[in-house]
Amino acid sequence: MADLPPLTTNPRVAWVGVGALGLLYSASLARAGVETHLLLRSDYEVAAARGISVRSVDGDFHVPPTAFHAHRSPDTLPTPDLVVISTKTTANPDLPGLLRPLVGPHTRLLTLQNGLGNEQLLADHFGPHRVFGGMAFVSVHRIAPASVDHQHAGHITLGRYAPPSSAGPDAHTCELAGLLGRSGFRMIPLDSLARGRWEKQLWNVPFNGLGAAMLADTEQLLRTEEGRRLVLEVMGEVVAVARADGVTFHEKLPEEKVCYTLGMGPYRTSMQLDREAGRAMEVDSIITSVRRCAAVHKVRTPRLDLLELQLRSIDTANSGAG
Amino acid sequence: MADLPPLTTNPRVAWVGVGALGLLYSASLARAGVETHLLLRSDYEVAAARGISVRSVDGDFHVPPTAFHAHRSPDTLPTPDLVVISTKTTANPDLPGLLRPLVGPHTRLLTLQNGLGNEQLLADHFGPHRVFGGMAFVSVHRIAPASVDHQHAGHITLGRYAPPSSAGPDAHTCELAGLLGRSGFRMIPLDSLARGRWEKQLWNVPFNGLGAAMLADTEQLLRTEEGRRLVLEVMGEVVAVARADGVTFHEKLPEEKVCYTLGMGPYRTSMQLDREAGRAMEVDSIITSVRRCAAVHKVRTPRLDLLELQLRSIDTANSGAG
Repeated sequence: MADLPPLTTNPRVAWVGVGALGLLYSASLARAGVETHLLLRSDYEVAAARGISVRSVDGDFHVPPTAFHAHRSPDTLPTPDLVVISTKTTANPDLPGLLRPLVGPHTRLLTLQNGLGNEQLLADHFGPHRVFGGMAFVSVHRIAPASVDHQHAGHITLGRYAPPSSAGPDAHTCELAGLLGRSGFRMIPLDSLARGRWEKQLWNVPFNGLGAAMLADTEQLLRTEEGRRLVLEVMGEVVAVARADGVTFHEKLPEEKVCYTLGMGPYRTSMQLDREAGRAMEVDSIITSVRRCAAVHKVRTPRLDLLELQLRSIDTANSGAG
Repeated sequence: MADLPPLTTNPRVAWVGVGALGLLYSASLARAGVETHLLLRSDYEVAAARGISVRSVDGDFHVPPTAFHAHRSPDTLPTPDLVVISTKTTANPDLPGLLRPLVGPHTRLLTLQNGLGNEQLLADHFGPHRVFGGMAFVSVHRIAPASVDHQHAGHITLGRYAPPSSAGPDAHTCELAGLLGRSGFRMIPLDSLARGRWEKQLWNVPFNGLGAAMLADTEQLLRTEEGRRLVLEVMGEVVAVARADGVTFHEKLPEEKVCYTLGMGPYRTSMQLDREAGRAMEVDSIITSVRRCAAVHKVRTPRLDLLELQLRSIDTANSGAG
């Protein structure tokens, strides 16, 4: 497998899929003097003319348009050292074509997208050696074009898709963590990206899946004993598939996640919000990806099977494609 | 087993659980001169003072309060020859106590309630020989106290819970059909009540269950291929439990039900309406009853298991008992 040289002294970062997450982190990087390029659509006009506004629990700030580079098309973007991807996974079929003009010989690709299979898509098209995955733990909302409200947390866990050795965090991951850490947010390199992804799935599958299928927020799901059993039974299937895939969790982790989530108060997941707004839901990357993995390992997932059909029927009906 | 004498010449009918259904049929019986007693709660004042108003596709009519007997309590009711029960099954724990004062030596009990297990409850408390079950195929809505809008159909299929012989419809069932047929609606005696109940369940389980769990009407459920598969998979489990319970359907029946339901246009089932209104849902009689039967016959129902947990979690959360 090809390996990567060290990052250049002044690495160039490009952000693709600039929603609330992308605006927050790229504004923070630009503010720190990192060469930052944003591929924008609806926010282009405002960002290019007036910059990015961040209302934040850590202190509000504004980044002028001279501090970063706004683009409408990947074709005007100089080859970056790192592309961070936070597009919705429902747009994954278009992603390789969008990224193609951006990927130079040593360009790293970091996907912060939801679910499983996103790194593999990038590896299939651009080679596994350049692919990293991460999970952003942050509460941030877009309140207007090029303007966000950052309410909570902000750390990102990240790891390499195919590290040459599994002993400790990969050096290139640490280097990326250093670069992105200039945003001021904590970056946590993972020894095992697979473990990180599965742990996120352990939460995402029940709360996004059941939340969207039933139109119930986390508190409505967990308020009753039946709801907690429902969530734990769905988690149990995710645990079984993860185990077959080589990732074992400690036995109490599902209950800990339930307990933690109860403490969060009522929370509507992105998939529920997408259903309510009539937008496409990330069924494939969050739910179907687990079922595909289960099929490979011959693990039975009857609960996920029904849940997926519920979500797909809603999703197809919503999108009017049925 | 004790058997029943023939009905008296002028049988006395009492109706317990007088919602839209009860108002329509008992007004129709009263209009035909049948001695009809209604056990009422919220509609008592209006019914006793002004009678019952029926707006109907078959012609509007009004029944004056002198044409029937309105009661607030079972204690004022003379012993009836037939009690028709259309209370919500969520009130079943209170039903035996409510009926106790009404049941004379030869009083028949006919339940028109949803789901499975309602006849057995009555049989356990009052003896199986007097128990009949029926299914009303009617679209009728209460539009004001003691006032309904009858929009479609109206026939009732009915059968005896424990017929002495299984060859042809039971004579007592035919007799009841004759009595209730005086309402002007068609009464259809069933050779096998069990078959009738299971066939209704084949529709009720997916459309009430999934509709309420997912907040999706019949058209939203059936609009997509995924949704039709979802409905057919749930129906498949009902078919398997029915078969284990001795009722075999012809192979195409599930698809015929789907086809028929598509033709009905968008329809929100009672369970979905109950969820939306924050009322208790008939989870036990419609869903859990099938799972109980499956457990007896050792049939696996993974889809119904998840669906039941979804509904129970919603129901308990809604009722604030969680």
